[in-house]
Amino acid sequence: MKKILVLGAGLSASYLINYLTAHAQQENWFISVADADKSAAERKTGNLPNTAAIGLNVSDAFELDQLVATHHLVISLLPPAMHIIVARVCLKHKIHLITASYISEEMHHLHVEAVKAGVLFLNECGLDPGIDHLSAMQVIHRLQGVGAEITSFKSFCGGLVAPEYDTNPWHYKFTWNPRNVVLAGQATAKYLEQHELKFIPQARIFTQTEPVYMNNEAFESYANRDSLGYIKPYGIETAHTVLRGTLRRKGYSHAWNMLIKLGLTDDSFTITDASKLSYRKFTSAFTPGNNLAQLEQRVADFLGIQTTDEAFKQLQWLGLFDEEMIKLNEGTPAQILQWLLQQKWKLQKGELDMIVMQHRIEYRIGKKDYRITCNLMVKGEDEIYTAMAKTVGLPLGMAAKQVLQGNIKLTGVQLPLQAELYEPILDELRTYGVAFEESTEALT
Amino acid sequence: MKKILVLGAGLSASYLINYLTAHAQQENWFISVADADKSAAERKTGNLPNTAAIGLNVSDAFELDQLVATHHLVISLLPPAMHIIVARVCLKHKIHLITASYISEEMHHLHVEAVKAGVLFLNECGLDPGIDHLSAMQVIHRLQGVGAEITSFKSFCGGLVAPEYDTNPWHYKFTWNPRNVVLAGQATAKYLEQHELKFIPQARIFTQTEPVYMNNEAFESYANRDSLGYIKPYGIETAHTVLRGTLRRKGYSHAWNMLIKLGLTDDSFTITDASKLSYRKFTSAFTPGNNLAQLEQRVADFLGIQTTDEAFKQLQWLGLFDEEMIKLNEGTPAQILQWLLQQKWKLQKGELDMIVMQHRIEYRIGKKDYRITCNLMVKGEDEIYTAMAKTVGLPLGMAAKQVLQGNIKLTGVQLPLQAELYEPILDELRTYGVAFEESTEALT
Repeated sequence: MKKILVLGAGLSASYLINYLTAHAQQENWFISVADADKSAAERKTGNLPNTAAIGLNVSDAFELDQLVATHHLVISLLPPAMHIIVARVCLKHKIHLITASYISEEMHHLHVEAVKAGVLFLNECGLDPGIDHLSAMQVIHRLQGVGAEITSFKSFCGGLVAPEYDTNPWHYKFTWNPRNVVLAGQATAKYLEQHELKFIPQARIFTQTEPVYMNNEAFESYANRDSLGYIKPYGIETAHTVLRGTLRRKGYSHAWNMLIKLGLTDDSFTITDASKLSYRKFTSAFTPGNNLAQLEQRVADFLGIQTTDEAFKQLQWLGLFDEEMIKLNEGTPAQILQWLLQQKWKLQKGELDMIVMQHRIEYRIGKKDYRITCNLMVKGEDEIYTAMAKTVGLPLGMAAKQVLQGNIKLTGVQLPLQAELYEPILDELRTYGVAFEESTEALT
Repeated sequence: MKKILVLGAGLSASYLINYLTAHAQQENWFISVADADKSAAERKTGNLPNTAAIGLNVSDAFELDQLVATHHLVISLLPPAMHIIVARVCLKHKIHLITASYISEEMHHLHVEAVKAGVLFLNECGLDPGIDHLSAMQVIHRLQGVGAEITSFKSFCGGLVAPEYDTNPWHYKFTWNPRNVVLAGQATAKYLEQHELKFIPQARIFTQTEPVYMNNEAFESYANRDSLGYIKPYGIETAHTVLRGTLRRKGYSHAWNMLIKLGLTDDSFTITDASKLSYRKFTSAFTPGNNLAQLEQRVADFLGIQTTDEAFKQLQWLGLFDEEMIKLNEGTPAQILQWLLQQKWKLQKGELDMIVMQHRIEYRIGKKDYRITCNLMVKGEDEIYTAMAKTVGLPLGMAAKQVLQGNIKLTGVQLPLQAELYEPILDELRTYGVAFEESTEALT
């Protein structure tokens, strides 16, 4: 019997744990789900055979050590900063580890030791990063296999509300960690464009968007983190352009940039006594001038827009001009904004989310240029079994299955870029309705 | 004999150590100067009697402990982050500590223990913060003493090049830590304006400047850090406006904001292989578009200026469009920019710097409103004995004298806001030519 340890039983764990327990008998697995809140773990495991729910304090080194040591593979859904703690314990006991998070510098440094220990630390194996890697690499390898030279690689992904529940002027609702949404773009984005390095600081990430169309819907993409770091791992050094982007519906980025310009996404200082401020006074504090009665005009003037513009209405709809008092006793501007957004952008019971992903890969065979477009659209089943939980959780579970079946030769700190991972996982994802549609056009 | 320990023998220590050694015999002091570089300490102490030069590794806890324990008072010129380490050792041995740096949160937390131990940790006792506190409090207490109510407090200070050596289009040269200049304004500025909280995020600190005039010269001020935190310590809760600002010559802030907008002051990521880039390519990486031959126009278009504008010429003068290769192997954009600035903004041999400070305090007596303006202008003696080193070093030395003479009753973590400090120090500063000029006008 193979023992799998899942760390973290939050909302995002639903689909993963379902997948694992559904395969437990056939694969002869035992599934332990550990969470700081034991009852959360119990709700996830139910009374299913071959499962255990465990209360775990991850910062208790001894407790974590004992738990990891008795398993064959760990899937960590903990906050990204905690993976490294788990990884060190896994290294000690030579246990495989799988996460859906970006490889941190510290994780990266464990590579040589992990190879020596013969264990796999597979990261970025959720949706984005995750399914994007798997699906892009399958196409890239296929094209390179027939002699194509990749000339441009663009990949976009967004977690959005399904169009039938798109009921607000931002065309957005939270389907994932709200804090990440509020702090998005706070690191400089890096990519390659026409052979040139491109750096976009936070203050203008949301102003340099690129249109993306799928199923008659118009999206826009803002540059996502560090695209440069994927050129070598993907083996696409021939490309003059390499860009990864995050998708929103049209109009979101322009309005979000207004919040950044005002300073409302600032997470660097705490406003004490915040509960003594109305949202109106909060907004006024970030706007030049003093006349509170004329706040609307002051904001519009400062942002260079009209109070009749859509972007202004988006700000207004959030309640930023309301006399209502702030509910937090204290908080950073970003936290105060997030609290407001969580009231406004909540996915209501019965509402569905949607995942949208698109790769645009240009290539040359001989003297002819082509573009292949790969589209993925997945809708959620309900507000628990969301498209987000599904597309993050399933690749993690499927990768675990491949590792435990002994199909994966890979060791060390890795991204899921190899055929031994993408072939079986993409095949299995298709049976869950997670399937790309491809189309190719000649450019010359 | 009283033993004084000076930690740090960098450029800024010159005036302080001169002051201390000049008073050593009369005051019966022994002066130890400790630095990581023992020869730097030796150059500062010379062969003077009653002095010792010491090589010290501050991160060696035992070494630091032994050294502090044998002194009566410590003056720390170390980088601000290291003061807390020194303070903890001082607390253990009940030794007084004086610094010219802002009180950190950690330092603040030592207050109760320091009071219990009967020691004084006097911070912000250089120029700005330092002389600004001393001089402002003298005026505020004097006004309040005659029944005035302070209605507005503004204080501005800048370290600049003297006008006769103002030879570049930025009207600025480095006279203090270049890194601080490059990273200025990266924290949100906070102040009070007409009873309203005001927060200015980095992206626009340099766009919201205020004109300041002194001796027929036009300066401009950008908001400096957290002004709100001084309202209570200053006892000016009656004021509707409280603002501290940093001074530059006119035109600096507008052009500096262009560097921020481009993203060149970003210190959050490292460009590896920087030496493979020309400054031209570096600038292009932060500018929308790709055509390197049209970089000048691309930059102007992105910034919304003309290539004939003064701000554009300021950027050009820095060498940002030059084909010259970057000299650093790797660095953050801020570090690469700083390297360039250090070549361009160097105070040359024989050139003098200048300190400019202005308080504008408005007050009401009965039903009449007045404004008092206090101006300070200090020029350097040469490129070592700068106005900056003088105005930072002297208050530190003079505060130490007052403490060692037993004139100061104060204990705990403190700012220099009390008559027992500002009276003797401002008197003594006057004998060194550091004197304010006051003028008062009726507003109603």
